Amino acid sequence: MKIGIVGYGNLGKAVEKVASLNKDIRIVGIFSRRKVESTNPTYTIEEAKNFKGKIDVMFMCSGSERDLATQTPEIAKMFNVIDSFDTHAKIPEHLEKVGKACKTANTSAIVCCGWDPGLFSVMRAIYSSIFDYTECFWGKGISLGHSNAVRKVDGVIDAKQYTVPNPKAVALAKKGLPINVAKHFRECYVVANEKKAEIEQSIKKIPNYFLGQPTSVKFISQKELDTKHNSLAHQGNIYSYSNIDSDAFSSHFELSMTSNPLLTAKILLAYANAILKMQKFNIYSALTPLEVPPVWLHDLSVKELTKTLC
Amino acid sequence: MKIGIVGYGNLGKAVEKVASLNKDIRIVGIFSRRKVESTNPTYTIEEAKNFKGKIDVMFMCSGSERDLATQTPEIAKMFNVIDSFDTHAKIPEHLEKVGKACKTANTSAIVCCGWDPGLFSVMRAIYSSIFDYTECFWGKGISLGHSNAVRKVDGVIDAKQYTVPNPKAVALAKKGLPINVAKHFRECYVVANEKKAEIEQSIKKIPNYFLGQPTSVKFISQKELDTKHNSLAHQGNIYSYSNIDSDAFSSHFELSMTSNPLLTAKILLAYANAILKMQKFNIYSALTPLEVPPVWLHDLSVKELTKTLC
Repeated sequence: MKIGIVGYGNLGKAVEKVASLNKDIRIVGIFSRRKVESTNPTYTIEEAKNFKGKIDVMFMCSGSERDLATQTPEIAKMFNVIDSFDTHAKIPEHLEKVGKACKTANTSAIVCCGWDPGLFSVMRAIYSSIFDYTECFWGKGISLGHSNAVRKVDGVIDAKQYTVPNPKAVALAKKGLPINVAKHFRECYVVANEKKAEIEQSIKKIPNYFLGQPTSVKFISQKELDTKHNSLAHQGNIYSYSNIDSDAFSSHFELSMTSNPLLTAKILLAYANAILKMQKFNIYSALTPLEVPPVWLHDLSVKELTKTLC
Repeated sequence: MKIGIVGYGNLGKAVEKVASLNKDIRIVGIFSRRKVESTNPTYTIEEAKNFKGKIDVMFMCSGSERDLATQTPEIAKMFNVIDSFDTHAKIPEHLEKVGKACKTANTSAIVCCGWDPGLFSVMRAIYSSIFDYTECFWGKGISLGHSNAVRKVDGVIDAKQYTVPNPKAVALAKKGLPINVAKHFRECYVVANEKKAEIEQSIKKIPNYFLGQPTSVKFISQKELDTKHNSLAHQGNIYSYSNIDSDAFSSHFELSMTSNPLLTAKILLAYANAILKMQKFNIYSALTPLEVPPVWLHDLSVKELTKTLC
C-alpha cells in the first residue's frame, strides 16, 4: 500500500512510525502546511495534487477537528482518505461532505476511525445488539476536549484535564445496574497567576463539561504541567450485561495504551485495508467503521479468513 | 420479525425463551422431528414447506453438527436461515452448500453464528487487524467435542470434560509473550464400571484432544455426573497486545455466561437482523458473522446509528 500523510503532529508522526515498521507499506510523502523534517519526502499540502494516482490512501492527521472538517472533503476529491474525526455532534455533516466528494471523484473514505469514535463505536454496536445493557468508561487519561474547555476560562494560561472513571459507577456497570452516581471524575491541572478561586468556580460551572460532575482543580506551574502532565496514555472500558430469570451474561472489553496517537495510527492502518476493498467493489462513498465488515480489515480472501478466524 | 425454530433441544428452547421476551418477534412455529410440547405451535419438519413466505428467518437449532450440515442447506431452499454450525474443519463446505441453496432460492443465510465461532470470530478478526498478538482462552466450561471424544473410549458409559485455562498461559498472554506452556487443562469426569486404569490411559492418548495436554481423569457415578456436572456455564477470553519501542497497547475481551445456549440464542437473534438487511440489499448467499457490517445488527438506519453509537 502506497500512503500519504497529511499533517505532521503527534498523529502524523505516529502513522509514519507504525507504517515504517510494515514492509508492505510505502510512505510516498508527508504533506504539511508548515515546513517539516523527516526521513521521508515532505511536501506542502498544495503539492498533493501532483501525486494523484500515485497514493492508495491518504491519512488525514491534522491536529484540530476544524482542519479535518475542511481538509478531508478537499483531499477526498483527489485521493482515498481515512481520518479520525471525533467531534461527535458534527459527524453526520462530516460524513455527508466527505461522501459527496467521494461520489464525484470515485474515491473511497473511512472517517471517525480512531479508538473512540472508531474501535469503541464498533464494539458498542456489536455488544448492544446482543446485550440489553452497555456502559462505556474512559480513562484514566487526558481529554483534549475538556482540557480545551478549561483553557478558555478567563485567566487560565494552560491546563490539562484527566478523565478518571468513578469506581462506584464501574462497580454498578459490572453488575448491569443503573448508574446513579457520576460516571467520571474530572481532575484539572491549571496554570494561572491570579484569581485562582474565581477560576476554580468558573471551571466547575462550565455546562456539559464540568457542571454537576465531581471536579477537582489544582493550580501548578507551567513547568510542572509540561513535565508531569504530558502523558499520551489512555484507557477505555465497555461493560455489557443481560439476564434472563436467574441466568446472566456479561462481557467486558478493556483497551489500554501508553500512546493514544500510536494506537490511533494502528487502527487507521488496519481500516485502510477496508478502503482498498471499497475501491475493489466500486464503493465510492464515506463510511464509518460501523459499516465496515470485519473481513475487510485483512488482506486475505474471505475463504482464507474463514478458515483462520472462524 | 416472524421466526421459525427448527429443533427443540437446549438451543431451540433458548431461542424460544429469548424471542418470547422480545415483543417485536413472533414465533410462527417450532419444527421438530420428534413430537414436542410448547406454548407455541409445533409441527414436524416436513410441514415447514407449508410456511413458505410466512416466516422471515428460520433458526436452525438442531443438536448435532451432522443434523445442521444437511438441514441448514435443505431449509435454505425455502427460508432465510441462521445457524451456529461449529465443526471448524467443515465450515468452508457448509458455507458453500448453504450459499448454493440461497442462490437458487433467493434466500439469505448467516452460519457459524454462536459465541465461538461467531462473536469470538468477529473479535479475533478486528483485534488481529490492529494488534500484532492475539490469543484466545476458553473456559472454565464443558466442551461438547472433548466430552464426546471421551465417551467414545471403550468402557466409558458417560463423561463430561471441562476446559480450564492454564493461569501460567494466561499470564503470558496478558504480557503479549509467546505461550510455551499448555494453554488449557483438561478435566474429565467419567462414568465406567471397570478397566479404569486402561480407560484413563486411553483418554490421555487421544490425539488432537488430549495427547500432550495436561489431562486429569476422575471416575464418578452416573448420578454424580448428572447432578454435579450439568452446568451450561462457560467463559471465553481474548488477549491482544502490541508494542512499539517502549510503547505498549493491549486489549482484553472477556465473555461470561451462566447458560451457553441462552447466550447463543441472543447472538442468533441479533444477527437475524442482518439477514433482513441481506434480503433488502438482494444478497442471496451465506455469510459468516465475519462478513457482517456492525450496523446490520440493528433496526435503526445508518444515520441514526452513527448518531447514537459513533
